[in-house]
Amino acid sequence: MATSHGVTVGGYFCPQVPITKVDEKDEKTPDDWIPRHPELIRLTGRHPFNCEPPLKELANHGFITPTSLHYVRNHGPPPKLAWDTHRIRIGGAVNNPVELSMNDLLTNFERVTMPVTLVCAGNRRKEQNMHKQGIGFSWGAAGLSTSVWTGVRLRDVLDHCGIKSWSDGAKHVCMGGADYLPGGGGSYYATSITRHVAMDWDSHNVILAWEQNGEKLTPDHGYPIRVVIPGYIGGRMIKWLTDITVSEQEDSSHYHYHDNRVLPPGIDADRAIAERWWYKPEYIINDLNINSAITSPGHDEVVTVQPGRVGTYKCKGYAYSGGGRKVTRVELSFDEGVTWELCTLTHPEQPTPAGKHWCWCFWEFDVEFMCLLRSKQMMVRAWDTGLNTQPMNFTWNVM
Amino acid sequence: MATSHGVTVGGYFCPQVPITKVDEKDEKTPDDWIPRHPELIRLTGRHPFNCEPPLKELANHGFITPTSLHYVRNHGPPPKLAWDTHRIRIGGAVNNPVELSMNDLLTNFERVTMPVTLVCAGNRRKEQNMHKQGIGFSWGAAGLSTSVWTGVRLRDVLDHCGIKSWSDGAKHVCMGGADYLPGGGGSYYATSITRHVAMDWDSHNVILAWEQNGEKLTPDHGYPIRVVIPGYIGGRMIKWLTDITVSEQEDSSHYHYHDNRVLPPGIDADRAIAERWWYKPEYIINDLNINSAITSPGHDEVVTVQPGRVGTYKCKGYAYSGGGRKVTRVELSFDEGVTWELCTLTHPEQPTPAGKHWCWCFWEFDVEFMCLLRSKQMMVRAWDTGLNTQPMNFTWNVM
Repeated sequence: MATSHGVTVGGYFCPQVPITKVDEKDEKTPDDWIPRHPELIRLTGRHPFNCEPPLKELANHGFITPTSLHYVRNHGPPPKLAWDTHRIRIGGAVNNPVELSMNDLLTNFERVTMPVTLVCAGNRRKEQNMHKQGIGFSWGAAGLSTSVWTGVRLRDVLDHCGIKSWSDGAKHVCMGGADYLPGGGGSYYATSITRHVAMDWDSHNVILAWEQNGEKLTPDHGYPIRVVIPGYIGGRMIKWLTDITVSEQEDSSHYHYHDNRVLPPGIDADRAIAERWWYKPEYIINDLNINSAITSPGHDEVVTVQPGRVGTYKCKGYAYSGGGRKVTRVELSFDEGVTWELCTLTHPEQPTPAGKHWCWCFWEFDVEFMCLLRSKQMMVRAWDTGLNTQPMNFTWNVM
Repeated sequence: MATSHGVTVGGYFCPQVPITKVDEKDEKTPDDWIPRHPELIRLTGRHPFNCEPPLKELANHGFITPTSLHYVRNHGPPPKLAWDTHRIRIGGAVNNPVELSMNDLLTNFERVTMPVTLVCAGNRRKEQNMHKQGIGFSWGAAGLSTSVWTGVRLRDVLDHCGIKSWSDGAKHVCMGGADYLPGGGGSYYATSITRHVAMDWDSHNVILAWEQNGEKLTPDHGYPIRVVIPGYIGGRMIKWLTDITVSEQEDSSHYHYHDNRVLPPGIDADRAIAERWWYKPEYIINDLNINSAITSPGHDEVVTVQPGRVGTYKCKGYAYSGGGRKVTRVELSFDEGVTWELCTLTHPEQPTPAGKHWCWCFWEFDVEFMCLLRSKQMMVRAWDTGLNTQPMNFTWNVM
């Protein structure tokens, strides 16, 4: 349910649904100290915590999602970290390796604030799993949320450490968090991005953030500090950040290779391991793929039509793309893809000076009741500035 | 036919097919002074000159296309310009408006050399026109070519002129050529790109080029100087460059609005004008869309199979995408899209330090003769690093 409570951050209204109580579902788990919204839908049982909000509730809040309703993807228990003692170690191909405290970050670097949509690479995987189960769990269409993030530019921090040149081996920026991984072979969650993505502020806007919607991060979102990489899948945005290592090679950790990849349709779990498909560089996912979803009508929604009365129903949904590309068109089909109706688009986001769009947008279309009644199924597709669109059918992959 | 003649430029072998003779098809036209390859396929009659090479010949030359076989898109006659007297006027939102001679460009700025694939936005439009004729003429699948270009960074030139800040109104870079447009309302060809594209060298690599494959530009390719914008459609790469104007608004010229746009499928030529669809900003094309094509087997190619002999046929083709995104996967289907075979990819291009891919790549797949014989049609699709792929069916548009 939408609320009128909230704060304005960076010019954007951030609705707030404050939660102070630990959910009884978290009793007797390692997370029994973290207050969580009781309506969040848990996708992997009680623990670890992986959840999305009810789709209707997500949609009703509009552009910015209250933090307590933001989707969460945790591989293990969130670590208990303290603001005052937390440190970020920065090393590798830099001239001045350092350890930064939170206070160092807050006082020594320029602060930036911007809205960014975070999306789990598995958003809507349930629809694929209904066709044929893969190895990933089933996200509905609410595995995404938008917040206003405040922090510092990763570029500024790396410049401060004297990052070496590309030809001197500073080609990748590896980042790791404090979250110990029960399933990850005794390791901590880590991944990497290229030097270019880390350093080209105009094109990528990567930040180290300590505030979400005007408040300190919550444990589920990476307290005290996390990475935010606009336009990228959530899986690269390290939470509980502890280590940044500039290196010649990409990160070598377990989840960097064995997660967030899209393999060709013929490759199942056994072949993926036996034939080392996880290590083929062409199948990594970084950029978000173009996507759109219908939030109204909802599943099983009943629309009451007054007899003899002609009227319309307002269809609604969201759309997003990757790489900063603006969603330029959303279309609905009520006749299985033969004809397409143009929807009205709303982009609440102010694009960056470089013209980048890092947030979801919203579409709506008033459809005649009679058209809705005759339609066997509704289809939606989005287009972006690169002339990319969603395919008519998905291509199954093992993730 | 491939040739062993050529030069190596920037580490890439550039085959050469020198042409010195004016084609008799150009007699009694304004182009009767320009030597052209007689095998080029003229798509709009004799004049203006719009051509593509025979697809087989394009494919046989491989990564770099000889200049004389590079596709050409001219709106009118190429202007007769002289190296010594040519000037580029740079003004608008800059602190130091200047006029640069070719000598100024060659001596005052750092020189760069790089391979870039140029593609006409209409590449393969013939297939769409066969479904329903639009207002654009019919390109086959050879409306693209790759050259090694040498010139200077547009960014360096704009910095030299003291380009103002984005907030001071330097938001677009308008560029115009010396080509007078018979059909353009008494104007010259012009268009614009954003400040970000012009200035962010790492992400966009825009150059003002005077050399193609190690030789001065030919009249058809913009002698003495043209713009090259990697990853963008050819329609933004001004030839015979005379003017650069930095401005608050995008370019206002005829062809900037009435060309190189993709409108929704329901909008035909009459509605586009009556309802001013050409002026809606969301339908402009800048980035190349992802594409792939089959070059072997060719249309009407006859494959001879020895009776009783089992063998394979090597299918071949090209693929490209926009925005610097690498083509990561190409797949063939011989059963109308039910299953897809993974092709072998070759990327002759060395990516930039920022990981950008500005050139086409090549795919091949050995198919059993019997599979080819049973197949009703072959289908090819490419994927890029943004997880974009080609749709199963095209979406018709008026252009």
